[in-house]
Amino acid sequence: MRATRVITLFTDFGTRDIYAGVMKGVILSICPDVQLIDLTHGIPPQDIRAAAWQISASYNYFPKGSIHLAVVDPGVGTSRRPILVACAGHFFIGPDNGLFSLLYQSGKPFDVYVLNQKKYFLDKISATFHGRDIFAPVAGHLACGTPPEELGERITDPVSLSATKPKFDGGTLYGEVVWIDRFGNLITSISEEEFKKHIQGKPFVIKVGSISLKFLQKTYAGAAEHGIIALFGSSGLLEIAEVSGSAARRLKMGTGAAVTVTIEKNLKEIEENRS
Amino acid sequence: MRATRVITLFTDFGTRDIYAGVMKGVILSICPDVQLIDLTHGIPPQDIRAAAWQISASYNYFPKGSIHLAVVDPGVGTSRRPILVACAGHFFIGPDNGLFSLLYQSGKPFDVYVLNQKKYFLDKISATFHGRDIFAPVAGHLACGTPPEELGERITDPVSLSATKPKFDGGTLYGEVVWIDRFGNLITSISEEEFKKHIQGKPFVIKVGSISLKFLQKTYAGAAEHGIIALFGSSGLLEIAEVSGSAARRLKMGTGAAVTVTIEKNLKEIEENRS
Amino acid sequence: MRATRVITLFTDFGTRDIYAGVMKGVILSICPDVQLIDLTHGIPPQDIRAAAWQISASYNYFPKGSIHLAVVDPGVGTSRRPILVACAGHFFIGPDNGLFSLLYQSGKPFDVYVLNQKKYFLDKISATFHGRDIFAPVAGHLACGTPPEELGERITDPVSLSATKPKFDGGTLYGEVVWIDRFGNLITSISEEEFKKHIQGKPFVIKVGSISLKFLQKTYAGAAEHGIIALFGSSGLLEIAEVSGSAARRLKMGTGAAVTVTIEKNLKEIEENRS
Repeated sequence: MRATRVITLFTDFGTRDIYAGVMKGVILSICPDVQLIDLTHGIPPQDIRAAAWQISASYNYFPKGSIHLAVVDPGVGTSRRPILVACAGHFFIGPDNGLFSLLYQSGKPFDVYVLNQKKYFLDKISATFHGRDIFAPVAGHLACGTPPEELGERITDPVSLSATKPKFDGGTLYGEVVWIDRFGNLITSISEEEFKKHIQGKPFVIKVGSISLKFLQKTYAGAAEHGIIALFGSSGLLEIAEVSGSAARRLKMGTGAAVTVTIEKNLKEIEENRS
Repeated sequence: MRATRVITLFTDFGTRDIYAGVMKGVILSICPDVQLIDLTHGIPPQDIRAAAWQISASYNYFPKGSIHLAVVDPGVGTSRRPILVACAGHFFIGPDNGLFSLLYQSGKPFDVYVLNQKKYFLDKISATFHGRDIFAPVAGHLACGTPPEELGERITDPVSLSATKPKFDGGTLYGEVVWIDRFGNLITSISEEEFKKHIQGKPFVIKVGSISLKFLQKTYAGAAEHGIIALFGSSGLLEIAEVSGSAARRLKMGTGAAVTVTIEKNLKEIEENRS
Repeated sequence: MRATRVITLFTDFGTRDIYAGVMKGVILSICPDVQLIDLTHGIPPQDIRAAAWQISASYNYFPKGSIHLAVVDPGVGTSRRPILVACAGHFFIGPDNGLFSLLYQSGKPFDVYVLNQKKYFLDKISATFHGRDIFAPVAGHLACGTPPEELGERITDPVSLSATKPKFDGGTLYGEVVWIDRFGNLITSISEEEFKKHIQGKPFVIKVGSISLKFLQKTYAGAAEHGIIALFGSSGLLEIAEVSGSAARRLKMGTGAAVTVTIEKNLKEIEENRS
């Protein structure tokens, strides 16, 4: 017996509207025996960059063969292409606007298909909701056995966001805040791996806004109440948190804010050069 | 093999409370093999009119035979009747307070049953949560094969909301805002069909609050940033949107607000008569 | 055929983040054929006490054998123990921080196991997300047949919150607000059972903030618009509500606020003693 296919939904639709529910209805009308999972509908509206990070941080916890339906689609109805990406044993369906950039940049092999077979779409295609009219039905057909090659045609030039990885220059690692979670933790683009590779166990200073941090904690309970701490969070990324509070509210920072880690020796040189 | 039955949940419960989850527990205790879908729990509290529109806009994307459990129930515990509606190959279960008005007014044949068979309810019926005590267990029994005729008795006088359809009078189509989505788009009661039938391709002016619009766009990206536009949205209804913004916040408008479309020739006459 | 196992998720993660979705991915990777139900992700962050009440009010509506995955875990990464509780034919998995107190205090027999078998965890255990790394995989293994005795070792000293039950003293029943629902209803720790046992049908006064109430209503529609009323809600607990409004906003009260019910005879004595 073939196991039930998992289809996750990953959107900026929020939970007030019927949009996500309607996409599920379309899928179930095509392929009734699927396991539908709301991965999140909480991406900030039209924030492709934040979405790209969250897709990359989550897909791998699902079984191989899962289909991830990602709809953050400010260009819906324009000429941006609908695509299917096969990567790391998973399938990703959504608009070609950079949503899947971190997969392309992961070093793992991938194939991209432009979805150009109208027979796998709904009969009537609106100009404003391709999640329902194109992406959901294609996911349904894929889940029930239509192979990617039949759903579209291979392309080699998918849109990829620039500068998603932190840069290391002159003893400083330059990153950014890529997500703010429910608890107000600021999650950055700096992975533990990159941190170790560049900082190499030397003394360092993390700077975010007006705050400087010289230590890493292991847990959220790792300092006094309302202290600002840095730690590697559950996705392996550097996080800035407030103990029993919200770092985002306290520091008044959002996604895109700069975060740096400087080797202390270099910091001294920088400060001496300034004076 | 009979396919798994779909049961959708459609409520004003929000997502903070255990209420929707508990309804699912009741259903699964009666009929374990169902596909449970959260259509929305984001109806504004007790807004029957908004709910009626959203049910009508969404049910048809689900497979025939689906059961839609709709609980927006300000009169719970009073004499309002619990009902089951069979329409267009779908089943609807909820309070008889007008929630299903747009189905009755759609021109499609329908049957309504008052749910009066206590053996299909939970043993103890609270005065405040019939979603859990009456509607969920009835949905479970229906999903597992009990026919509507056994669950209740046919009635012919269900409650139906008045004036849901736009009126056309003196060259003007009078509608209202029926939903505000997550993106702040104002969705109106004016369908593309009604628009075409009455405006007949003539020049027109759409008025909503202090704004006048003379053109229809095809997509949300169809004008300059922060421009206010009109378009037919994914449900086939006239929408007022702000490009890369929220029309609801910008125009400070909510559900129930008036929206008119006037044929320009008539508009001139109206203005001449005024002066 | 064994029926599909139900796993509910009960967290303070909210719905913006990928955290709950990722837990589902982990479960499905271990045990694909489960029915996953979001019981709630809306527990106020780190509010163990509110969570304990909501678990106790909801689990029993699910089929026997259901697994309830409860993650409200401010002490994640510290020495607090991960546990599994078997009680009333249900299974509960989460941190040993008092979340399951009301089960222990219900008078029903229960067994508690400390989860100490690393082979049932994910390979890499983070310090900040045991929901994903420990609790979800253990739930998956339990759902697919590994018995509690293999997943952990029995313990007899689980953490239990104090003073969850109302106290009766000098003619007054002392309770607290334990939950505020979406409609702004204040749900208290005073059950209908305790109320009847102590008040015994005598005249009474309910006091909450500056408000005194001498009557119980049966439904939310039981008084004039915007009247403040008391009633026994759907969980069998005393609730304070505003008709067509939010009692929480009106009375500016939150969880933990004191609620008393005093037998009127005693109230007179108290007042006479004061003067």
